[in-house]
Amino acid sequence: MSPQHPAHADTLPAGAPSSISISDVRPRLEGGRYPTRRISGEWLGVTASVLHPEPLEARAAALFRHEHDETWQLVPMKPHGDGLWAAAFQLYAPGRYFYTVEAWVDEFATWRERLRRAAMAGRDTEAELASGAAMLRAAAKSAKGAVRLALQKAAARLADRDLGMARIHTALDGELAEQMAEHGPRGQHTAYEQELVVLVERERAAYGSWYQFFPRSCGPDERTHGTLRDAEQRLDDIARMGFNTVLLSPVHPVGTTNRKGREGQGAARAGDPGSPWAIGSPEGGHTSIDPRLGTLEDFERFTAAAREKGLEVAMEIALHASPDHPWIAEHPGWFLRRADGSPQPVDHPRQAFTDIVAFDFCGAEWRALWAALRDVFLFWCARGVRCFRVDHPHAKPLAFWEWVLAEVRGKHPDAVFLAESFTTPRLQEALAKAGFSQMLTYFPWRNTKQELVEFFADLRSDQKSEYFRPNLFPTTPDVLPEYLQAGGRAAFLVRAFLAATLGDSWGVYSGFELGENEAIPGTEEYAHSEKFELRPRRGPQRQGIREFITRLNAVRRDHPALQPGGVLSFHRTDNGSVLFYSRRTLDLRDVLLFVVNLDPRSVEAAWLEVPIDELHIPEDDVYQVHDLLGDIRLHWQGRYAQLLLDPRTLPCHAFLLRRRVRSERDFDYFG
Amino acid sequence: MSPQHPAHADTLPAGAPSSISISDVRPRLEGGRYPTRRISGEWLGVTASVLHPEPLEARAAALFRHEHDETWQLVPMKPHGDGLWAAAFQLYAPGRYFYTVEAWVDEFATWRERLRRAAMAGRDTEAELASGAAMLRAAAKSAKGAVRLALQKAAARLADRDLGMARIHTALDGELAEQMAEHGPRGQHTAYEQELVVLVERERAAYGSWYQFFPRSCGPDERTHGTLRDAEQRLDDIARMGFNTVLLSPVHPVGTTNRKGREGQGAARAGDPGSPWAIGSPEGGHTSIDPRLGTLEDFERFTAAAREKGLEVAMEIALHASPDHPWIAEHPGWFLRRADGSPQPVDHPRQAFTDIVAFDFCGAEWRALWAALRDVFLFWCARGVRCFRVDHPHAKPLAFWEWVLAEVRGKHPDAVFLAESFTTPRLQEALAKAGFSQMLTYFPWRNTKQELVEFFADLRSDQKSEYFRPNLFPTTPDVLPEYLQAGGRAAFLVRAFLAATLGDSWGVYSGFELGENEAIPGTEEYAHSEKFELRPRRGPQRQGIREFITRLNAVRRDHPALQPGGVLSFHRTDNGSVLFYSRRTLDLRDVLLFVVNLDPRSVEAAWLEVPIDELHIPEDDVYQVHDLLGDIRLHWQGRYAQLLLDPRTLPCHAFLLRRRVRSERDFDYFG
Repeated sequence: MSPQHPAHADTLPAGAPSSISISDVRPRLEGGRYPTRRISGEWLGVTASVLHPEPLEARAAALFRHEHDETWQLVPMKPHGDGLWAAAFQLYAPGRYFYTVEAWVDEFATWRERLRRAAMAGRDTEAELASGAAMLRAAAKSAKGAVRLALQKAAARLADRDLGMARIHTALDGELAEQMAEHGPRGQHTAYEQELVVLVERERAAYGSWYQFFPRSCGPDERTHGTLRDAEQRLDDIARMGFNTVLLSPVHPVGTTNRKGREGQGAARAGDPGSPWAIGSPEGGHTSIDPRLGTLEDFERFTAAAREKGLEVAMEIALHASPDHPWIAEHPGWFLRRADGSPQPVDHPRQAFTDIVAFDFCGAEWRALWAALRDVFLFWCARGVRCFRVDHPHAKPLAFWEWVLAEVRGKHPDAVFLAESFTTPRLQEALAKAGFSQMLTYFPWRNTKQELVEFFADLRSDQKSEYFRPNLFPTTPDVLPEYLQAGGRAAFLVRAFLAATLGDSWGVYSGFELGENEAIPGTEEYAHSEKFELRPRRGPQRQGIREFITRLNAVRRDHPALQPGGVLSFHRTDNGSVLFYSRRTLDLRDVLLFVVNLDPRSVEAAWLEVPIDELHIPEDDVYQVHDLLGDIRLHWQGRYAQLLLDPRTLPCHAFLLRRRVRSERDFDYFG
Repeated sequence: MSPQHPAHADTLPAGAPSSISISDVRPRLEGGRYPTRRISGEWLGVTASVLHPEPLEARAAALFRHEHDETWQLVPMKPHGDGLWAAAFQLYAPGRYFYTVEAWVDEFATWRERLRRAAMAGRDTEAELASGAAMLRAAAKSAKGAVRLALQKAAARLADRDLGMARIHTALDGELAEQMAEHGPRGQHTAYEQELVVLVERERAAYGSWYQFFPRSCGPDERTHGTLRDAEQRLDDIARMGFNTVLLSPVHPVGTTNRKGREGQGAARAGDPGSPWAIGSPEGGHTSIDPRLGTLEDFERFTAAAREKGLEVAMEIALHASPDHPWIAEHPGWFLRRADGSPQPVDHPRQAFTDIVAFDFCGAEWRALWAALRDVFLFWCARGVRCFRVDHPHAKPLAFWEWVLAEVRGKHPDAVFLAESFTTPRLQEALAKAGFSQMLTYFPWRNTKQELVEFFADLRSDQKSEYFRPNLFPTTPDVLPEYLQAGGRAAFLVRAFLAATLGDSWGVYSGFELGENEAIPGTEEYAHSEKFELRPRRGPQRQGIREFITRLNAVRRDHPALQPGGVLSFHRTDNGSVLFYSRRTLDLRDVLLFVVNLDPRSVEAAWLEVPIDELHIPEDDVYQVHDLLGDIRLHWQGRYAQLLLDPRTLPCHAFLLRRRVRSERDFDYFG
C-alpha cells in the first residue's frame, strides 16, 4: 500500500527541515557578492521574506556582528504584512559587519491561535487544552520565580476540566503569551543561507570638503620649485575657507625619461619640472618624497601642521611608473614589456602617456607586485595618512582593487579611498562595489536642469546609494569644463553652490577660488597646466570667491540636512534655467531650500512650487526663508513664491526654513 | 627602497588573476538561488557586465549545457556598450541547463588597436611591430594550410623594415584580425563565479486549455456514483470544445470519519459521497483508486481514451489525509498529533477542515514521509500521468516543494505541476520560485479595467515573468466569484474571453460552459457544491456557451500571438468599462486586437486608440479587422475606431488584423 522506497538521502536537506523559509534578505548587492556600505553611526535596515504555512506563528530576528566580535547581536524583526519582516540596527566601529536573518516557530502562540479559532467555531477544545497544559508545564521548568509559578498555575488551570470555558480565557491571556514567547518552545529554527556583509567606514568616506593643490606650486616664483615647508603656508587659507581635507598631487620623485614639456606638448626643456604623475627616479619611487619637495620628515611635519588646523591630508596614489623608477631594474617582471624588452608605455585609447609605463598586474610575478603595491598604501598609513585619491583605477584589474582595499582596511579600517575614475558608468559602479569609499563622477559635465535632476536621481536611487558615494569636484587638474571656461564668476558660484549643497562630499582644485578659467582652446585642459609647470599664486593676493566658498562650507558644517542622511528632493519651477531643490533631515528639524539660476549670462525670474505638504506647512501659514549666503530674509505664504536671480550679483540662495510661531516678528527655527 | 614583505598568499585570489571582471550575469533569480524558467524551444538571452581596462580587447562567450550533457556549448557574446555583453541560445530538452559566462583577452586585437593608435599619433612603432610579428609566428604554428601560410607571410612582412609604413596596413588587415581571433593568443581567461540554472519544461507548463471535472458526477443520476467508465463519455464533448487537458478531482478512496454533509454543512447522511479531498479509507490512500470510481485498470483505460482524443489527464494531488487513511496506523509518526495522541486536523485560519488531518512535514520521521510523498507522484507518473494540480501547497513547507518537485523532475522532466495556491502574493511567488510550473492566481477577483491592467502588468514584468506562469481559471470548485453570480451569460462570456486571450494557460471548471452561477448566498461557494454531492449534468443537454468556448480555443490554437512569446499590450479607450488590448508575435506576422465590455449589464460605446505606430500601419492606410468570434469584418483607417459592445449579444471581439495590400477587395493577412 504505502511506498517503502528509502529516501534519497543525498538530495534531502542536511539538517532538520523547517516550515519557515527565509529568502530575499536585503540589502544584498548582486546576491551578496559585494558588501553594502555605511558610515559609522548609520543604521542598517534589514528586510527579509519570512514565509510559512499560514496557521504558524513565526518569529524572526536580524543578527549582526563586527568582524572582530565573536558574538552575534540579535534584533527582533517586525512583520509588515505579506511575509515582509524588517529590523534596523546601528553600526558603530569601522570595519566589516556580518548580518543575516533567523526565524523560528513560536509553538505556544501557534497553539494559542489554533485554540482561539476552535473555540470561536464551537469545536471541541479538550485535546488542544491538554496540549497547551503540557507546553506550559515544560516551560515552567526553564523559568524562575514568579514566572515559573504563573506558568505552573496556568498549566493547572488548563488541566482542570471543572473550570470549563474559563480555561480558554486563561489560555488566551496576553501576559501569558509574552511569558511563553520567552520561555515557551521554539520550533523549526532556520537561518538564511548567507551571511551578508556591510562595510562600515568612518564619516570622511561619505562627508567632507576637499581642497586639492600642488605643493610644488607654493614656492616664491615660477622658476623655484616649492617645498612642503612652503606648502605649510597655504594651510591657513585653506582652513579659513572651511575645508577639512587637503589633497596633494603626487609627492614622489619625478622621472626624466620622456619628461613632458609645458602644456604637455613635446619634450621637457631644462628647468621644466615634469608631471608629478611620472613617478620614480633614481631618487626613489612610490614610498619616497621628491627631494625638491623635501624629506619624509618634512612630509610628517606637514601632515602634523595640517592636523593642527583641522585638516586631514589626502595623498594621490598613482600605480604606474616613470621609466626611471627603481623597480624597472629591480623587478623587471613587474612591468608590461614589448617584444624588444622595453617597458610598455601606459596605453590609453585617447591620451598619450609617453612618460609612464604600466605594471603587469596579471603577469607571472603578480603576487609579489600586488603585495608591493599594497605595501605602498601601508607605508603611507604608517606615516599617518588615511585618505587616498587613487589615479585611474579603471586602468587596473577590478580583482586587484577588491583585494588591495580589503588588505589595507584589514589593518586600517579608517582608510578612505577616493577613485579618480572618469570611465564608463558600469565600470565606475563596479569600482565602487569593489570597495572604493567614494568616486569622482560626471558632475563636471552635468550643467543643465534636466542633466542635474537625472544625475542625482540615479545617484540617490535605492540600489546605487547602497554602495556608490559621489565626491563632487567642479574641476580637477585634468578637467576645466566649458561651462566654467565661458561663464565667468557666476559660473564658478553656481558650480560651487551645486557641488557643496547636492553632494555630501565636494572639493575644489586650487585656483577654483580665483576663478581660473583659461583653457587650451578647444579642450578641457587648463592653459599653463600645473601638471607640467609651477603655478605660484602668490603675487597680489586676489580674494576671488573665497568668501562665498567659506559660507558654503559653514552652511554644510552647521546643517545636518547637508550631511549624510539628509534627504534631497527636487521641486518644480516654471523656468528651465532655474533649479529648485531641498534638503532636510528625516525629522524635519533642519530644512533648507536651494534655488539657483543655471544660466550665468542672464537674469532669470521664476515661480517656485514650495513642497509645503511634505514640510507640513499649512496652506495659509506665513513662513520665513533666510538666505544663509546672502543673509536675505523673506516671508512667503502658501505653495508658490517668486524670485529674481541675477548672475551679476548672487545667482543662488540657500534658504533656511523658519516656521512662524506667534507673530510676524517671532520666527523660530523650523521644527 | 622597494617593500619586500611577502604577499599574504591566503588572501590572494587562488588562480592567476585577470584584468577582466565578469559580474551581474542575468537572468539570475535572488542571486542564482532559484532557477530561471523556460519551455522547450524558447530562447534564453544572457547578459553580463564584462569590464576591463579600456585598451584591452576582450571577448566573451555564454556557456551552457544540459544537466545530462558533459560538454559545454559556447555562444559568442556581443558587446552592447558600457560593458554590457549579450548572447542568446535556444533550449530544447526538458530538464535543467547550467549557464555561465567566460571572457578572455584577444591579445592580437589588443595589440592591433595599440599599434593603430601609435601609428595615428605618429609615435615610433618598431617595438610594437616586432611584438606583432612574434605573435603571428607563434599563431602560425597552431594553424594549418592556407591560414598558416597567411600568418607566416604577415609575420615576415611585419619584420621587414624595408616595407616601412606598408607594414602598418598589413598589421591592420581585417582578414588577418579574423584569423588571429581564432588562432592568436588568448590571455587572462576568466569565468563568472557561478553556474546558474534554467529549468526547461515542456510546452504544457506554459500553454494549455484545461477542463476540470468530477468523474463521480458522470453517473446517470444524482444518487448513482459515477465511474471512470462513465467519465470516458465526457471526453468527446471536452475535446470538441478544444481543450487539451482534463483535470480530475481526487480519485482516491474517501474517508468516513467526520465526513462532511451536503453544502459542507454538518455531518454526512447516508448516501452522501463525502469530499474527495478527504483522502484515504481502509480501501487505500494516495496511490489507490476509489472503488466507487473503478480500478487502477479503469484509470489507465481512461487516460488512454483521453490521449486518443488529444487530451492529457491531469491529477489532483492533495497532501493530507482523512482520519481513515491507512498511513495513520502504519506510520503514526507521519502526522501532527495533539497531546492526547489524536491526529491534528488540518489547521486553517478561516476554514474548518474537520475531515482531514495534517502530515508532520518537519517531525522526527520527515525523511520517510517526504520520500513516501515523492513516491505518490512517482506512482502516478508510472501510470502515465505527467500533469498534476497540487492542492494548497502554501500549507506545506517551501523546502519540501523545492525538494520533491526536483526529485520527480529528475526522473520525469516532462512532469508539470499546477499550484492551487490562493495565498499572499509573496508566498505565491515563492512557490513559483520553488519549482511549480504554473500557478492559479487572483484572476477570479480581477474584474475592473484598472484591476486587470495592473494584474497583467505585474505578471508580465521582467522580473516575475522569469519564473511565474499563471493559469487563468474564472472559477474553481472553491470559487464562484460575485461577478459571475450576478452577471448572467455575458459575465461568463467576458471571463472566458479574458482568461483565454490574456493567459497562455487557461481553464474552466465543469458547469462553467453551462453558466452555472448559483452560490450559497453571501459566499463564493457553489450551491449544491460538487465537493459534497453528485452533480450529474446529463438531463436535457443544454448548449450553454460551448460554441463560444470552442471558438476561443480554436483562436488560441491557430494564432501564435496567443501562445508563449506572444506580446501583450494594453491600449487606450475613452470608456472605463471597455478594455482594449493586443497580442502579437515579435515579427508582427500575427496580430490580434481584443476589445471587451466589462460591464455585463449595459451596452457600451467606446473610441479605441489603435497602436498603429507599433504595428507599422501608415496613418492613412485602411486596414481590415476580422472578428474571429463573431465573424464580423470591419475596415478601419488611422488611429481611432469606434465600437458598440452589447452584452446581450456579444460583449467582446477578437479581431485579426489584416493589412490592405492593393485594393479594398484585396486584403491579405497582416505581415
